[in-house]
Amino acid sequence: MIIQLHKNCTAKERNALDYLLVQNKIKTVEINTQSNHYLVCIVTKEFDIRHIGNLACVKDVHRVTDSYKLVSRQWKVNPTKIDLGDGVVIQEGDFTLMAGPCSIESEAQVERIVKELVKNNIKIMRGGVYKPRSSPYSFRGLGIDGLKMLYAQCRAHSIKIITEVMQVTQIREMSDYVDIFQVGARNTQNFNLLDALGEIDKPVMIKRGISGTIDELLQSAEYIFSAGNEKLILCERGIRTFENAYRNTFDINAIPILKEKSHLPVIADPSHGIGIRKHVEKITLASLVAGADGAIVEIHYEPEKAYSDGQQNLSFEEFRSLVKKVNVLVELFLKMES
Amino acid sequence: MIIQLHKNCTAKERNALDYLLVQNKIKTVEINTQSNHYLVCIVTKEFDIRHIGNLACVKDVHRVTDSYKLVSRQWKVNPTKIDLGDGVVIQEGDFTLMAGPCSIESEAQVERIVKELVKNNIKIMRGGVYKPRSSPYSFRGLGIDGLKMLYAQCRAHSIKIITEVMQVTQIREMSDYVDIFQVGARNTQNFNLLDALGEIDKPVMIKRGISGTIDELLQSAEYIFSAGNEKLILCERGIRTFENAYRNTFDINAIPILKEKSHLPVIADPSHGIGIRKHVEKITLASLVAGADGAIVEIHYEPEKAYSDGQQNLSFEEFRSLVKKVNVLVELFLKMES
Amino acid sequence: MIIQLHKNCTAKERNALDYLLVQNKIKTVEINTQSNHYLVCIVTKEFDIRHIGNLACVKDVHRVTDSYKLVSRQWKVNPTKIDLGDGVVIQEGDFTLMAGPCSIESEAQVERIVKELVKNNIKIMRGGVYKPRSSPYSFRGLGIDGLKMLYAQCRAHSIKIITEVMQVTQIREMSDYVDIFQVGARNTQNFNLLDALGEIDKPVMIKRGISGTIDELLQSAEYIFSAGNEKLILCERGIRTFENAYRNTFDINAIPILKEKSHLPVIADPSHGIGIRKHVEKITLASLVAGADGAIVEIHYEPEKAYSDGQQNLSFEEFRSLVKKVNVLVELFLKMES
Amino acid sequence: MIIQLHKNCTAKERNALDYLLVQNKIKTVEINTQSNHYLVCIVTKEFDIRHIGNLACVKDVHRVTDSYKLVSRQWKVNPTKIDLGDGVVIQEGDFTLMAGPCSIESEAQVERIVKELVKNNIKIMRGGVYKPRSSPYSFRGLGIDGLKMLYAQCRAHSIKIITEVMQVTQIREMSDYVDIFQVGARNTQNFNLLDALGEIDKPVMIKRGISGTIDELLQSAEYIFSAGNEKLILCERGIRTFENAYRNTFDINAIPILKEKSHLPVIADPSHGIGIRKHVEKITLASLVAGADGAIVEIHYEPEKAYSDGQQNLSFEEFRSLVKKVNVLVELFLKMES
Repeated sequence: MIIQLHKNCTAKERNALDYLLVQNKIKTVEINTQSNHYLVCIVTKEFDIRHIGNLACVKDVHRVTDSYKLVSRQWKVNPTKIDLGDGVVIQEGDFTLMAGPCSIESEAQVERIVKELVKNNIKIMRGGVYKPRSSPYSFRGLGIDGLKMLYAQCRAHSIKIITEVMQVTQIREMSDYVDIFQVGARNTQNFNLLDALGEIDKPVMIKRGISGTIDELLQSAEYIFSAGNEKLILCERGIRTFENAYRNTFDINAIPILKEKSHLPVIADPSHGIGIRKHVEKITLASLVAGADGAIVEIHYEPEKAYSDGQQNLSFEEFRSLVKKVNVLVELFLKMES
Repeated sequence: MIIQLHKNCTAKERNALDYLLVQNKIKTVEINTQSNHYLVCIVTKEFDIRHIGNLACVKDVHRVTDSYKLVSRQWKVNPTKIDLGDGVVIQEGDFTLMAGPCSIESEAQVERIVKELVKNNIKIMRGGVYKPRSSPYSFRGLGIDGLKMLYAQCRAHSIKIITEVMQVTQIREMSDYVDIFQVGARNTQNFNLLDALGEIDKPVMIKRGISGTIDELLQSAEYIFSAGNEKLILCERGIRTFENAYRNTFDINAIPILKEKSHLPVIADPSHGIGIRKHVEKITLASLVAGADGAIVEIHYEPEKAYSDGQQNLSFEEFRSLVKKVNVLVELFLKMES
Repeated sequence: MIIQLHKNCTAKERNALDYLLVQNKIKTVEINTQSNHYLVCIVTKEFDIRHIGNLACVKDVHRVTDSYKLVSRQWKVNPTKIDLGDGVVIQEGDFTLMAGPCSIESEAQVERIVKELVKNNIKIMRGGVYKPRSSPYSFRGLGIDGLKMLYAQCRAHSIKIITEVMQVTQIREMSDYVDIFQVGARNTQNFNLLDALGEIDKPVMIKRGISGTIDELLQSAEYIFSAGNEKLILCERGIRTFENAYRNTFDINAIPILKEKSHLPVIADPSHGIGIRKHVEKITLASLVAGADGAIVEIHYEPEKAYSDGQQNLSFEEFRSLVKKVNVLVELFLKMES
Repeated sequence: MIIQLHKNCTAKERNALDYLLVQNKIKTVEINTQSNHYLVCIVTKEFDIRHIGNLACVKDVHRVTDSYKLVSRQWKVNPTKIDLGDGVVIQEGDFTLMAGPCSIESEAQVERIVKELVKNNIKIMRGGVYKPRSSPYSFRGLGIDGLKMLYAQCRAHSIKIITEVMQVTQIREMSDYVDIFQVGARNTQNFNLLDALGEIDKPVMIKRGISGTIDELLQSAEYIFSAGNEKLILCERGIRTFENAYRNTFDINAIPILKEKSHLPVIADPSHGIGIRKHVEKITLASLVAGADGAIVEIHYEPEKAYSDGQQNLSFEEFRSLVKKVNVLVELFLKMES
């Protein structure tokens, strides 16, 4: 059960609620986010929620049978919008394309890619400066200096930034230069990182684990939400299976399932989801018609020379083809749907 | 290496080829299909194929490095068309929808569903009469009598029939009443069945195994082709993974990969691919934009009363919505693509 | 619910039972095996089984809540023994080692391997004459002639034969030369083959499917049993996962789980279960202490020259080491256990 | 290539080496651990390592073709011993049993379990105080106070402690009370945590990821080693598959494979590996004969009342049976092996 409280209820009004809960032996977790005040209640026996709904301090009350609570669509039917300012909004009924290189490599690289984004009217740039790498001997990213450089160029063109954060101590220094923090597939269940991201007021996009279940992804989002941050985005990036003909198995089923189970926006990552350049376009378009609210794709002017993930980076030519087709489907298909 | 021979080459011409092959110690498998005559050659050392290309009996010669040969797109770049007669053709650039119940249950059931197909201009009906069931105590289908009844009603409305064959001894008795034989996921590597289906002149749709690789699916198609039957269709129906939020994981990646690797048409089975009624539409549309040449879906007027797979059967209302959207995407999207 | 009937009950006694079942609307499937007569009942409402237990024709009656019935240990607590004659018995509390080449290749090959088996006191020889191969162009085995040759040599040394049957039409011709029919991993859900093997009076060893669940394996065994053949053996041979450091993932957990859920003997196949020669011994020994009733291993005097599966065939030297250690563990460990 | 340097080589001797490396364009990473000094070299072209082996400052030099280097057995053939002091050593040829509750719950709980360990001559206790939980609303452990309490009781009985560390900031405060830091399956690729654990001088046991490959586990160990800490232990705890008859699929194959590929000791975690109490014993024994150097098991005096993982905790009675059988196999089997 989720109880949403009025922001300015009096102590007396609140006492009435607490009394009722104690009387019914209902345990609660109190949660204050950027904009709301909730009690998440673990209800173990039958209980008539109308008793609570009538109290003065209660704005809303809902049963939630899912194991995750605040991110569940059982409670909040209206889809969550993520407003990044300057008119950039990630939301249901639209399809937000984010693009950029796997790793930020140099000022020249960022310049060329930003220019391409501007040309294609793309408003959010991706680019890793802290790179999780299987081997300790691989390139691990340019770090905070790379991020500042990226920021300088993006701001000049009103482009928002999404980039991966790997550990708690990076959050503060990155915060001024980031519009969306990304939690990578290897950190989906790094619970301390999730807790810490719950304490800031910045959007967070959380990727599904490498073999994570849909339920685990939602539970991880619940960690952040219950620590105080409602600005969440879910990301499907493919799962690990026995198939070796491509990099990961993009789980197209997860798109409608996540949209059904949660009110949070869902973004597809087809670059990791198939991992083969020439097929990224098809998987992106498939995500769109399956109900995703956007996609994040890797691009590079010379994919074969990228520091990382070259085999899955779109060339500029491939990227333009993708943008064109996305626009057609948004225009024709999404408008028909809504 | 695949050598395609002229149908009417003389013994002398053929001898010249055989001599060259023997001289170069190239082992061959000779294959006669409905319409062509091939030699599949296992080449183990460097060899200049132009020596062969110039011979009188040779229509065409190609190197094929894939483990499968005749079904590979390395050899045959033009996509294969499956012509069922009466203008019903499964082919690239179009999207053929096949629909029907999981199991054929009764004359009344078939009548109602056929009527619905006619209304929606669907030309191919699915419906199982031999049902592979995990438990020996489950309903195993109406058998040959059910098929004859299905045939009578479909022919009256010029509707083609696709249905599953489970064993070699069923082929002959089913043959007059079937337009496409379906090989189920549990029989993808039933090699004797594949051999036998290679000896007939009817289209065969072969489903990917329950945890079968893409390569295994193509090798299984190669079995049928190499036994003499070129009229083949590949079907992606979802794979088994750790995820329990739905029935199978529909492998959307397999669609562009199969289209790249093979010249055979690729059909999606979203009903088994996700196994949840309300999401079948989205997965079907995703397959379309990902490049599938069609889809096969389960429908029933009362899904909850179906003998089998009720949870994944579309109601008629859901089906009409699907048909409408497929038509829009075929019109707007596929025409843009081609 | 399983009702075991006395073999010679009178019509009147039987009528009393049928009357009670009809009155209680209990549907039954009647099963006659080599040695017993059962009714498998699908009970959908509460029912006091003592009413049945007291009837004259009823030998025994048990509730079984598993989806499989006759192979369940809920019904039959005592483990099933498979008696092959001449003192060769597969049974709980012992560890039966079966060995031989992947494929039967030649008379000379069989001769050398039989000799090795005799030396090591191995009583059951494996060896494929019908080989399921992913590619139609691979070696498919010597067929019935190979089997007859194998038989001649084995009988001369009182060695029993286990070999794979791939299709219904092979059963009759193979039957005189086979002591245990093996159903391969690709045929675990070839339900027509299972039905047919239920109609003969020869032991059948059924392998778990390539990504088959434990429940599916037991249901497949139920197919054979319910068609009339109680002489069944279960085989764990590894499952397909994402791991590529070896061939299959040997599911050691399946050993105690199968022994708990079923009364049938359980055999390990470590050769396919790990697929790497030097590690086959360790996996075999692990199976023994985990509770397997035996193992089937591939051996060859020149593994690198074997027609198939050379990388997982034990050399004779490795095989002798294995036999020695198995004997030590049987002597010291199994005796301690029992 | 790994170059092991003498600890006290002169600047001149070192210059000679560096000169040779630069001349041959070999990039190096310099690594100082508790006891050794290495250069890990990425060699991209043919190079005769004898040129290096003869230099004064070089103790040893080896080619390593694996993607991981310092943890590879290609370089160091002798198995690594982990000496915890007071005669407690984890090493090849022995089988170290570690046991304790899933979570540390109370002083009384620890007291009863310590007593049981003493009785059974177990020298290492497990017990979580920081618990990674899928849901933010689950019990997350007693934290540092729980650890201090555990420490007080264990030290009184000369019992060593292994417990999970979840984030970098916990390392310092935990360090005085911990003998082995455990990295959990959800943190196997938390690279910042791995880096930080490389900077301390305490043994670390690293668990394989939930669907982590064997190669990834070794690469993660390489992170810690290359950051300066050689005292490493690998742990197989089961992987996620499609099978639902138990919790995880214990990968018995991983035991001999890890022992072959790395010189580090390998510990089995059968409690998580199968997750069903009554089968934990069999999986533990299987690990032993498959070559594991020890096992870590969960025990509780009242498993059904444990705060977490009750279904997989051994009762004291089950634990004693396990200890007895382990001792028999160590005595009879391991001595035969060595």
